[in-house]
Amino acid sequence: MNIILFEKDELKSECIVLTDHRAKHIAKVLHSEPGDCVRIGEIDGKIGTGKVVSIQNRYPFLVELSVSLSARPAPPPSIDLILAMPRPIMLKRILSQVTALGIGTMYLVNANRVEKSFWDAGILNEDEYRPHLLHGLEQAVDTRLPEIKIFRYFLPFVEEYLPDLGTQYSSCIIAHPDSPNSLSDCLKNQDGGILYAVGPEGGWVDFEIEKFLAAGMKDFSIGSRILKVDTAAVSIHGRISQLLG
Amino acid sequence: MNIILFEKDELKSECIVLTDHRAKHIAKVLHSEPGDCVRIGEIDGKIGTGKVVSIQNRYPFLVELSVSLSARPAPPPSIDLILAMPRPIMLKRILSQVTALGIGTMYLVNANRVEKSFWDAGILNEDEYRPHLLHGLEQAVDTRLPEIKIFRYFLPFVEEYLPDLGTQYSSCIIAHPDSPNSLSDCLKNQDGGILYAVGPEGGWVDFEIEKFLAAGMKDFSIGSRILKVDTAAVSIHGRISQLLG
Repeated sequence: MNIILFEKDELKSECIVLTDHRAKHIAKVLHSEPGDCVRIGEIDGKIGTGKVVSIQNRYPFLVELSVSLSARPAPPPSIDLILAMPRPIMLKRILSQVTALGIGTMYLVNANRVEKSFWDAGILNEDEYRPHLLHGLEQAVDTRLPEIKIFRYFLPFVEEYLPDLGTQYSSCIIAHPDSPNSLSDCLKNQDGGILYAVGPEGGWVDFEIEKFLAAGMKDFSIGSRILKVDTAAVSIHGRISQLLG
Repeated sequence: MNIILFEKDELKSECIVLTDHRAKHIAKVLHSEPGDCVRIGEIDGKIGTGKVVSIQNRYPFLVELSVSLSARPAPPPSIDLILAMPRPIMLKRILSQVTALGIGTMYLVNANRVEKSFWDAGILNEDEYRPHLLHGLEQAVDTRLPEIKIFRYFLPFVEEYLPDLGTQYSSCIIAHPDSPNSLSDCLKNQDGGILYAVGPEGGWVDFEIEKFLAAGMKDFSIGSRILKVDTAAVSIHGRISQLLG
């Protein structure tokens, strides 16, 4: 935890009182004492410092902070991700990893090779996925919560939603091992945001690739090595960030 | 599992007999029948096909394959990694992820912020780490097992081993958030291999950075976002691969 995040409505008269894992972190990891300052941030707001007014450094933990907010976090690279719904345990990891790397919106979509049972997973409830996003922000010292948009049905997403969505980006690209195009071929125009798509284990089926291309996306390959979804999502984010410079 | 790997000494008269998880995979995931061909590879050797001669497709699984090897796997990007010894559960994931991405040698080294207990972990025994490397190769359809070299003490590694080692690479680079240099600044010469270093949670201490620089490495930063070790190792591998083209 490299920043202590709080909700806007926790702030009262420029003070917050923490009693949960954040209080424990300040007490047991940071070993803060009254008068010390810790880095804090308001979720979807500014970053600043919290001065420890009082602290109870054993259970039940309690930390009172006097809050001073100053700066917006540095803007992340403008990268968004379309992800075929992965196994829930893998989704949790991807949520915090791409949040840490910096992402605006993640579109979770269905695909032929997505197991139907994945759509019953609790992680699709905001109450359950939000902590993984916060975890990524706490890691990366950011306050901007990514948006998560869930599309249980493939065709409405790709036929009705994606064509309009795509016009908001400078490049919309889809990773596909069989593609003859390189990533740098597809990112010639880097003035706006990038939307990249990563398929399920086993890949997109041909029909899905055709639909994505018809919706205006360009296919690319990063080589013949077949990667797990989490490795691909993180590695391609790195590649795009490098090309954006 | 996108390729079935076997040890050289399992091959007898151009045949292998499998009775373990590989046999189960061929029976229950691939649903192979006699006459079908599966992709196979000899560890550190060639890739080819295994024709199913006979199969017992329920427990106890048994598959007999007639082996025909033809091609070497495509060469991976020539990237090696120095990694400060991470938490064992994270090391397992990194081992299979960077193996899947393609790596030659991983140097596991000590650092000030490495917890001493990590060095007692069973994962440092070859019997325990090798399956995670094989897992990465099975994912990426490769046969080249990375080398793992373990350095329990930091100073002998950085003072005695690294200066000579570094001469074998075109660039030796170390990720450090405070660095003013970009990754592309450090990889101007891309004719040979790249050796990159990723620190522990909390980062390298100043003394360690000084020692790495004195040994000939160049420091670089990929921005102000603080990443977990596994995210950093995979993301930077992607960035380097993109620059190598």
